[in-house]
Formats: sequence, C-alpha cells, structure tokens
Amino acid sequence: METAVQLISRSPITNKEYPLPQHTDDRAGIDNFLLLHPGKKVVVVQGLGFVGSVMALVVANALTEEYAVIGIDLPTASSWWKICSINEGVFPVLASDPKISQYYLNALQKKNYYATCDPYAYSKAAVVVVDINLDVKKQSSAIGQEGYSVDMSSFKKAIESIGNNCQPEVLILIETTVPPGTSEKIAKPILEDCLKKRNLPADKIKVGHSYERVMPGPDYIDSIQNFYRVYAGTDEKSANAVETFLRTVIRTDKYPLTRLATTTATEMAKVLENSFRAMNIAFMVEWSRFAEEAGVDLYEVVNAIRLRPTHKNIMLPGLGVGGYCLTKDPLLASWAKMNLFGSAEGLHQSEKGVSINDKMPLYAFEYLRSQYKYPLEGKKALLLGVSYLNDVGDTRYTPVEGFYDQLEIEGCVIALHDPHLLYWEEKNCRVNQNLDELLEQQYDIIVVTTGHKEYRSNPLLFEKLMQQMSTFIYDTIGVLTNDEIKMLSVKHVVKVIGRGDL
Amino acid sequence: METAVQLISRSPITNKEYPLPQHTDDRAGIDNFLLLHPGKKVVVVQGLGFVGSVMALVVANALTEEYAVIGIDLPTASSWWKICSINEGVFPVLASDPKISQYYLNALQKKNYYATCDPYAYSKAAVVVVDINLDVKKQSSAIGQEGYSVDMSSFKKAIESIGNNCQPEVLILIETTVPPGTSEKIAKPILEDCLKKRNLPADKIKVGHSYERVMPGPDYIDSIQNFYRVYAGTDEKSANAVETFLRTVIRTDKYPLTRLATTTATEMAKVLENSFRAMNIAFMVEWSRFAEEAGVDLYEVVNAIRLRPTHKNIMLPGLGVGGYCLTKDPLLASWAKMNLFGSAEGLHQSEKGVSINDKMPLYAFEYLRSQYKYPLEGKKALLLGVSYLNDVGDTRYTPVEGFYDQLEIEGCVIALHDPHLLYWEEKNCRVNQNLDELLEQQYDIIVVTTGHKEYRSNPLLFEKLMQQMSTFIYDTIGVLTNDEIKMLSVKHVVKVIGRGDL
Repeated sequence: METAVQLISRSPITNKEYPLPQHTDDRAGIDNFLLLHPGKKVVVVQGLGFVGSVMALVVANALTEEYAVIGIDLPTASSWWKICSINEGVFPVLASDPKISQYYLNALQKKNYYATCDPYAYSKAAVVVVDINLDVKKQSSAIGQEGYSVDMSSFKKAIESIGNNCQPEVLILIETTVPPGTSEKIAKPILEDCLKKRNLPADKIKVGHSYERVMPGPDYIDSIQNFYRVYAGTDEKSANAVETFLRTVIRTDKYPLTRLATTTATEMAKVLENSFRAMNIAFMVEWSRFAEEAGVDLYEVVNAIRLRPTHKNIMLPGLGVGGYCLTKDPLLASWAKMNLFGSAEGLHQSEKGVSINDKMPLYAFEYLRSQYKYPLEGKKALLLGVSYLNDVGDTRYTPVEGFYDQLEIEGCVIALHDPHLLYWEEKNCRVNQNLDELLEQQYDIIVVTTGHKEYRSNPLLFEKLMQQMSTFIYDTIGVLTNDEIKMLSVKHVVKVIGRGDL
Repeated sequence: METAVQLISRSPITNKEYPLPQHTDDRAGIDNFLLLHPGKKVVVVQGLGFVGSVMALVVANALTEEYAVIGIDLPTASSWWKICSINEGVFPVLASDPKISQYYLNALQKKNYYATCDPYAYSKAAVVVVDINLDVKKQSSAIGQEGYSVDMSSFKKAIESIGNNCQPEVLILIETTVPPGTSEKIAKPILEDCLKKRNLPADKIKVGHSYERVMPGPDYIDSIQNFYRVYAGTDEKSANAVETFLRTVIRTDKYPLTRLATTTATEMAKVLENSFRAMNIAFMVEWSRFAEEAGVDLYEVVNAIRLRPTHKNIMLPGLGVGGYCLTKDPLLASWAKMNLFGSAEGLHQSEKGVSINDKMPLYAFEYLRSQYKYPLEGKKALLLGVSYLNDVGDTRYTPVEGFYDQLEIEGCVIALHDPHLLYWEEKNCRVNQNLDELLEQQYDIIVVTTGHKEYRSNPLLFEKLMQQMSTFIYDTIGVLTNDEIKMLSVKHVVKVIGRGDL
C-alpha cells in the first residue's frame, strides 16, 4: 500500500491524481513545444514551487522580449502534479492576486509556458533560472529547534543536472536563497567540472545570483515584477548577462536594479534581510511577556512607536513565525560563516532569534493551558487560521502546527478553519472554509491563529462569537479590538497575547 | 586641593569658573523674576541637561501661551555653572541648530527664562516638567558591561523636593526616561505622601508621563517642537492636563499627540523604542564580522537592503554605541520587569544587545592591534572624532572612550580632533578643532572614530591623508569611499571595519 501511495502525485488544488512517470524522457514534448516558438530565447526555470512557478509565469509575460519558457521539476509525488497541472492549463498555485490568472491566461494563449521533468530542457536554454528549495533540517520539529544541519546534496545534484546538459555559454541565474558563498564556491565549480567532463569550454559559462523578494498574497506578481532587485555575477560578463535578462522581465525603470560586487554579497544581502526581520520579531517576544506582566496593551504601544519614521517596522509577536524564509535563512548564513568561510563562530544572535521564534507556539500553548483552568482532554477547540501568513493559503512551516500538535497531544478535538485552504498537506487533514457552518457548533476553546482579514473587525464573526457560551477565546494575533474584547469577556474568558490582562 | 576643586563649577563653554553657592535660598531672585510676569502660568523645568535646558527654551517660546519659565538644577560642580550661565545670557548647550540661539535670544528679550537652584520655585509652578537624569551603573566602565544596577534614590529625592514645595493641584509631567511603572508606583505615591505630610489634599495632584525624542544636533529644537509625542496620565484628569500643556508647546496640528492608556505604557514605549534601536545595532555586529571574513563590503550590502521600505532602518555598526539612551534604556526596562513587576526573568535579549554594543570599542581596538603589526608603545595616534554621534559635541558615554583607554594603556601618544569640542570633560583633556594644524604632523595611526560630516567625502582631508607616509589608517565608520580607500592603500595600510579586506 505504501508503495502505491508513493507512485501517485495528487494535486491539492483539484484533488486529481497523477501516476508518476516510468521515465523522464520528454524530448518529443520539449521539441514540439519549441517548434511553436522558432527563434525565441528559451528560459528554463528549475523548480516549480511558490517562487519558480510564478517566476516562470513572469518570464512568460516578459516586458520587452518574447521567451519560450520551460518549467522543470522532479517527477516525485510532491512535484509531478505541478508539471501535469501546468500542461493541462491549471496553475499550480492558488493566490488572491488576480494578476496570476491574468498572466496565466496570457501564457496559455501564447502557449509559451511548458513544464517537464526532462533535463534535456537545459540543452535548449539561453538562461536557466534556479528556483529550487534549499532546506535546513532542524533537530526537533516545529517547536524549540536548538541544533540544525544544512544538506547541500540535492542543491548540488540540481546544479549538476544543469551542467550535464547545458550549452557552454548559458546564463545560470541562481535565485534560490543559498548560504553566502554558494554561487562562487559550490555552483560555479560544479558547472565548470561538468563542462570539462563533456569536453566543452568552461570559461564561457555565466553564473549570477539575484534574489527574489516574493510575497505570496495579493501582490504576488508585483513582488517579482514591480520591486527592487539586487544582483551580481561571479564575473563581469555574468553580471552583465544577469542585468540584461532582468531588464526584460522586471520594471527596472520604476525599480532600479542594484548591482553588488560579488555573488557572495547578494547572497549575504538576502539572508541578512530575512535575519533582520526574524530578529525584529524575536526581539519583541520578551517585550510581549513584559507587557503582559505590566498590564500594558503592547498593540497600543507599538502603534504609537510606529509613528516614528525610523521605527515604522517594529514588529508585533503573534503565535509564531512561519514560512520558508525567516525560519531558516539566519541558519543558512551561520552555516556558511563556519563551513564556507572557516570561521570558528557562527552567527549566535541570529541563530538565537530563530530559536526564540520557533518556541513561540509552545509558549502560546503553555499560556493557553495556564489560563484555561480545565483539563484539555476531550475539549472541543476551533483554530481560526492554518496559514503562516494572513490572507494566503500557505502552510509551509506554519507556527499553527506546533500549537495544533500540543492540543492534539492533550486530547483536544480540533476543528480547523482557513478561508484559503481546503487541505493541510503537512498534517494530512481537512480544513473547513465555511466559518458560518463551523460556528453553528459550540466550542470550549476558540483560538485565532492567523490574522486573515476575514477575522479582523468582522461584525458577523463577532456576532457568532457572542453566541458562543462560556467559551475560552484566545486571540494570539490581536484581530479583536479592545471594545470587542470587553463585550466578549462578559460571556467568555478572553485572552489576547501581548495585550495584558483585560 | 581636592575640596577647593569641588567648590568651583566651570563652564566648558566659556571656561568661566563659578564658586558654588553657600546656600540654596533664591526667593528674592525668583520673586523678582515673577514680578516681571504677572498673571502668567509658571512652568518649572527640573534638570538643565541636554533635554531640560532646551525643553525650558521651547516652553519659553511656547506656541499658544506665554509662560514664565524657571529652570532648576542642583548647586553642584557639574550643574551650578548652567544656572549661572542661563542667568548671564549664555546658553549652556552648544549646538549646530540655529534655532537654539534664535529661541534663546527671544527668551532673553522677553526675560521669561530664569534659572535657580532653590526648590521654592516649585511652589509657584502650575506645571513641573521633570527632565533629570536617571542613570544605570554598569559594573565595568565603558567596555564589556555584564552586570548593572539601577539606583532610584536621586530620582526619588528630586520628586520629594517637588512634593515638599508644590501646590496641591500642580501638574507633574515626567519626561525622564524611567523604568516602566515609575510614575504610578514610585513618583505618584511619593508626591501624595509629601502632600499628606504637609496637610494638603493629595487627590488633586496631576501626574503624567510623556517622553521626549530629543536629538541633539541640527534639528535639536524641532526634535522637541515638531515631532510626535506619546503621553499618558496616572488618571484621566492628569492625562487631560498633560494634553492641554503639550498643545501649547508642540506643533500638534502637524504631529498629532498619541495618548496611551497608562503611564506605564508610555514609559514602556520609550525604553522599547530605544531597545529596538540598540538591538538593531547589536544585531549587525556579528554580520560585520561575517562580512569581513567573507570579503564582502557590508556598506554596499546594507545600502542595497535599505531600498526595501520595510528594511530602511537596518543599521551599520561602527566603533560602538554611545549617548545617554541606547546604552542604558534596555537595562532600565529589564530592571523594571524584575523589580517593579516581580518577574523572575529580565529582558535577556535586550540586555544582551547592550552588552554586545558595549564591547564594540574593544573589538575595534583588538582589530587594530591584529592588523597593525607593530608594538603600539610610543606610536603617535590621531583620533578623528570624540563625540558619540556625528555632527554634535556630545561625549556622554561615547564609545571613543573605551577605544582611547586601550590605546593609552598600550602607551600610544594620542591627539584628538573634533570640530564640535574644545574639551573632553570625562577624560579631562583638550580636543583640537583645527584639522589642518593637526595633519601638518605625521602619525603612525589615524582612526576615524566619529562620522562627522567634516570627514565625509572631504577632498581637503583626503589630500592631507594622502600626504601622510606609511600611516595606518583605520576607518571604523565608513566615511572613506571605496575609491579613496584604493588610492590611500597604495601609500598606507587602510582598514575599514565591515568593508572586508580591500
């Protein structure tokens, strides 16, 4: 049975199942696609995840050039359905950005976005954009990471797969967030080795790095096409080639490009950006506790501070930190410092920031347990929000997981709501999108776990909450207003992290 | 001899010496001053330091009301000269802001700014603004603080001095940065006790907190008068009184006031603001090391990141962190958490930030020693900048001190330049303002220690540096451009913290 499951790749969007292919050969498919686009430059995007699939879409809708775009991913259970879906005319990412469907419709009409799993595609590419994942393995799961490891092997394999097939003068543009130093010390040597083994010249290849700043959500496309880009090349010809390419897809008149001296610098810029953000969240965690102890409404305090232009981006802690970047990028940097540059010391402060953030869901759970004075076993709980971020359906490293796990361990009966999700892949369970239906039942505990706009100053939700009886309502995000909390607290126990005891 | 020195208070601005007074009685002076201003409300500003003396000036130039302003400070060696200076027509703060002299001239013409050391002044006040210092004592000096203590005794004494003299319905507006909880748990009870002891009603007194965001420098006055203010009262009548008063002195049409629920909230906002800033500097320290190791120009990287609106305020580390706020405010908060709210845990992360920043000058010195391969004894060193901040003459907790101390221990012969200082009080030594004169000599080591604009892209300075021979030039701030560094490095050894090896 287990083997049978692995031979199937299921689309979480349509629920359609695709048997995995017996082999990767798709020469005919690729050649047929390219016959439709004679003379066009071919851009291959490696990795069809949240960045790659949309980056490919942006390239298929380039501003000043017509490209033939091939998305490539592995024929695995988690990726094969994306390849099939793209070729069947169903975009593999659900997003609230209306530009996504508009761009995808364009690409379908122009027939210039094809997907495959065959590395033969690299042999046709003028540009390969690398958008694969590079994961950090934390020693414990969602909660309380202390140690971690970085495994470069699948990244190296992906680069090898390009090197074994590409033309000698191709531009390899790495967009993946990598440990600083990777393009120069890992990717370029692999590519040169591969070319040498193929008896091809190794000095013509162009390797660059430019990091995306993709925000899934209502501005998904704009976060690629209408935003500042930082880039560099491993040499001048590479940097020039990256610049030329980016100018065709990004609105550089409004958002000028920034060229840095080395790819190590751009790689560092990316992880530094995200470490800065992760640290600014982690910094607030202990202040949130202090505000609770002092009976201070931290939301009020932070809003007052944000009036200062220099302090606009001070953060508020919620249930925790999720997503693909902030949970690992500081660790990639620390790893690189020690493993690529031979330093005896990692980035202690930045690592600590990640570890503080990782512990937040556990703290929220402990807080719930300490405030909700009854045993949790058998209690009915409703979690409002599964995504790690408001207004998107993205469960990657969502802090809701650690919180959910604890409730489950304690024997709670948990219902899940999220307006953007039907299914929670990582937990293998259904998510209900119908809030009205869910709130027809009574719960012992209702926890706001994501700050979706459907939960913010929503009079209908508030009315339904008012109809709950003796329910413990725990708003970890601060979507309820002080007035709403006051009214709810007459009938229910209401707690809000960081707002102090009300 | 030692006693004789203590009986004199010397103005660092005019070098004039004032014998300390035999007694504090200045009833006649105060009464005579008030005779000039019949019917005007009296505002007493307690503390004539960098904040109080200028706040008093702003109140003397209030927007919608004519106040009689009395500045009060202690008749001590460090403060008595300020009182004398104000009454003699010399403002006790040197600043590049032209509004300072304009406002002071106004006040001199209107004769509405008097200074005294007699607490009798409080008996005349409608409003007392508290702008005294509240210091944190670190266990070691400028470098490497690990433990610290907060001594509230002089703050308590100052509040008692008000309570023993004030009218029962006075407004006490605390602007001092205090441990959160201070207004409610310390100041108000003291004031009420004093009034009760004087057989006066204790329920009419108004106590509020509103923190200044004063930035000494070219926008000194505007940082008080044209900037956002956060305020609160210990009760509603107090909050209303604070609001009424602030509206008369601050341009609240352009910078609306923000009222918070409690004084603990505003007190927390202040220390949180500064802790946020201190942490953002501390966060960059380890990244600066990483950039050095990886040969990355961190300035270039940070400038690229700053294009992102959410990351505009990412900091660059320099020689260290100085000034009165960032070096202690996180500790005040941590102290309050444990001592005023009974928490078992302090604010570890925020304390750590201060301790990282405190160690920066030592790191800079160690870096100099490791790069400058000769013994330092007897070497001639020139430090460019003594102030903790660019473009002001303010040496409070300047990180230059820790760096200077180390050079002195090693036996260097040190010359000091600062365009804004003639004298370094804390070190009791002369500062030269004439850069040309200083650079007529040759130095073994020149260190840029403050980022004054006189050092930034100054072709004359650069020319003089080019005339130095085999000098080790160490730019800890990054005022030299990459091109300048390249040219200098032909003749000298040039090192820049955070720019990597050039």
